[in-house]
Amino acid sequence: MSPSLAAESSSRPGQASVSGLMAEIAGTGTDPARGGYTRPVFSTAERDLRTWFIDQAQRRALAVETDANGIIWAWWDVPGTAPGSARENAIVTGSHLDSVPGGGAFDGPLGIASALVAVDILRARGQVPRRPLAIAVFPEEEGSRFGVACLGSRLLTGAISPERALRLRDPDGNTLADVAAANGQDPERFGPDPGRLASIGQFVELHVEQGRGLIDLARPVAIGSSILGHGRWRLRITGQGNHAGTTLIQDRRDPMVAAAACVLAVRAVALRFRNARATVGRLVPVPGGTNVIASAVDLWFDVRHPEDAVTAAVVENIRQEARLAAAGEGCDMELTEESLSPTTHFDAGLRTALQDVLPEAPVLDTGAGHDAGVLAAHVPTAMLFVRNPTGVSHSPEEHVEDADAETGAAALADVLASLG
Amino acid sequence: MSPSLAAESSSRPGQASVSGLMAEIAGTGTDPARGGYTRPVFSTAERDLRTWFIDQAQRRALAVETDANGIIWAWWDVPGTAPGSARENAIVTGSHLDSVPGGGAFDGPLGIASALVAVDILRARGQVPRRPLAIAVFPEEEGSRFGVACLGSRLLTGAISPERALRLRDPDGNTLADVAAANGQDPERFGPDPGRLASIGQFVELHVEQGRGLIDLARPVAIGSSILGHGRWRLRITGQGNHAGTTLIQDRRDPMVAAAACVLAVRAVALRFRNARATVGRLVPVPGGTNVIASAVDLWFDVRHPEDAVTAAVVENIRQEARLAAAGEGCDMELTEESLSPTTHFDAGLRTALQDVLPEAPVLDTGAGHDAGVLAAHVPTAMLFVRNPTGVSHSPEEHVEDADAETGAAALADVLASLG
Repeated sequence: MSPSLAAESSSRPGQASVSGLMAEIAGTGTDPARGGYTRPVFSTAERDLRTWFIDQAQRRALAVETDANGIIWAWWDVPGTAPGSARENAIVTGSHLDSVPGGGAFDGPLGIASALVAVDILRARGQVPRRPLAIAVFPEEEGSRFGVACLGSRLLTGAISPERALRLRDPDGNTLADVAAANGQDPERFGPDPGRLASIGQFVELHVEQGRGLIDLARPVAIGSSILGHGRWRLRITGQGNHAGTTLIQDRRDPMVAAAACVLAVRAVALRFRNARATVGRLVPVPGGTNVIASAVDLWFDVRHPEDAVTAAVVENIRQEARLAAAGEGCDMELTEESLSPTTHFDAGLRTALQDVLPEAPVLDTGAGHDAGVLAAHVPTAMLFVRNPTGVSHSPEEHVEDADAETGAAALADVLASLG
Repeated sequence: MSPSLAAESSSRPGQASVSGLMAEIAGTGTDPARGGYTRPVFSTAERDLRTWFIDQAQRRALAVETDANGIIWAWWDVPGTAPGSARENAIVTGSHLDSVPGGGAFDGPLGIASALVAVDILRARGQVPRRPLAIAVFPEEEGSRFGVACLGSRLLTGAISPERALRLRDPDGNTLADVAAANGQDPERFGPDPGRLASIGQFVELHVEQGRGLIDLARPVAIGSSILGHGRWRLRITGQGNHAGTTLIQDRRDPMVAAAACVLAVRAVALRFRNARATVGRLVPVPGGTNVIASAVDLWFDVRHPEDAVTAAVVENIRQEARLAAAGEGCDMELTEESLSPTTHFDAGLRTALQDVLPEAPVLDTGAGHDAGVLAAHVPTAMLFVRNPTGVSHSPEEHVEDADAETGAAALADVLASLG
């Protein structure tokens, strides 16, 4: 950034606060049944948030475009260049607006609101970019609708083929192709975009912390070092659907019993490997009636570990125990890998640059996946984490204090200024 | 019944077949995801079946009324009496049109179709009733939408208070009061109807068999002796929702792990008590995201045993094991009884009368609940079971051969003729 003597325009809003922006979207996508927010990609709630973001960007005279994969880009072009003409070596920040079911307010939107406020801070300081700067909004970061996390950045980078992505189905059976088309995206245009990817010089994502690292260190902001390798697997156990009252216990092949043994196996295997995390958060009996022995049970497990070989060993151990559990009940099992990401170490040079700007910020790794982790395979990437005083994530109890949110946005502004 | 020299009317249809009537509704409420049929009460599918039944009844010149609790009654009045004027000591047959999720074609509708065909058979024989005869269609027999089985007959008899019933909610959170009102039923009028109940002289329900008794005996039709006592309980386990990647295993209070232990406990306890059946067919994690440690899990268990004291002991054993499982994971638990029906022995005199008419039919008990079981506490009640060659129930694999279906309807006609 370079100092500018005159403000670029007098018609723009003054400096917004992160808490003020967060308050504007506090009523969007609330979930009365689960608590918190349910904002799946292309839901009414998520579409409303996209519209809100575009409005906020346009109020800041940022040039907004939605790319072939549904990622929104809001550009602050270098003054004196024609809009869109010289978007090379860009500084990009951003995050996502979709949520898990019953998630917190900050996971995703904090990074977007902080980016908008960082632009305001830079403008208030009279700084103008020497390199193009963009705020990016990535769709389906959580994978809570179509089952694959970071779907937008995976499509952009080619980490998932458009053919596979477009066939993904939501819980109601709709394909991504159909849902995207109904939302004005052309499914034919989905897929890798090497030119756009090459135009990103650095990517910095600010995100609410999803653990207790900053609580323990009593600091408001951290710099990310790495993302634990992680993946999702679907386990389908098939038995014999039957009547709960008329079928003797000894005549049963009940997949719910086998599935319960698998849930316990997932926990037991996780305890066998230091630092491993393995979780069953989603389990669906079919047909799901109270007076019906299920005919099948689908369950999904999520596994994470810093070492990819350990992640593979955890999954293999679970597979063996699941096979035994299913066989013990006369059931069949089928295990499908839905996604797998190796451990990602963020760019060392960029991390050092952030440490120079934020010398008091500790360096932490995270067990949570992010679009930054997908982009890190292609461009120098960094993350900032903002303290979450509950340490709880993917839950309504996730929280950020207002003062920490403003500190985070100021830190992001400082980082962007130092890069640009 | 008395013989009649002239047919009552020449404009009525000839004798239908059960298989022909079943074919007419074979396309209604099919479930492409689960297979079979999903026809919850007041769904489009169940409403379409009610309309179909009313049309069938009217084609047979039966006088149709829907009572305050949503039960449809189709009356064949005694010739020479004004319609509706002398409906005392009536012979009533019937069953239900709703289904479990992904249920079979016959559970419920077979009793309705057989009743319509029985009327045709009696008419074809030139018989006319000396006592009023009705076909009754009971709503929400399965309890698959509002959680309480035999809801229509429970309301009629006062086995559930209208206050409690109207507050019941479906999985989408709608109350029975709201859903009933939206379907033209006045919630204010729900509740016990002693006058109507007193007008029933005998009730006979024909139903597809839900076990293997008739397969083993190689007979097409059986007479029911009793219904196993049964009930449903909801177990809510509450832990701490959190992020699946960032929360260390030792920091977790994961209700899914506790719920899995409870599912295994339900099985283990059932095996401790001879002839007990205990089943978990429905389990719902909240929020249910793949990368989210659940904050709570709801599971329902169904328990049945011929001796009510054993049913109570099974539930108490499960309660104790669930408490230990929840405490072991740092979770809370709450157990709620949703329904409980004692073992029902059908009227001995009526059973003997049926045995006189059907001397070859074996006498069998059943583990499945029925509206007949609720009515049996108030009026002499009997059941007929028709062979199911798969022995599988509450599943698309449930089946009845055409020949057995016609034999069942003929047996029902013989029984009604002998009573009337």
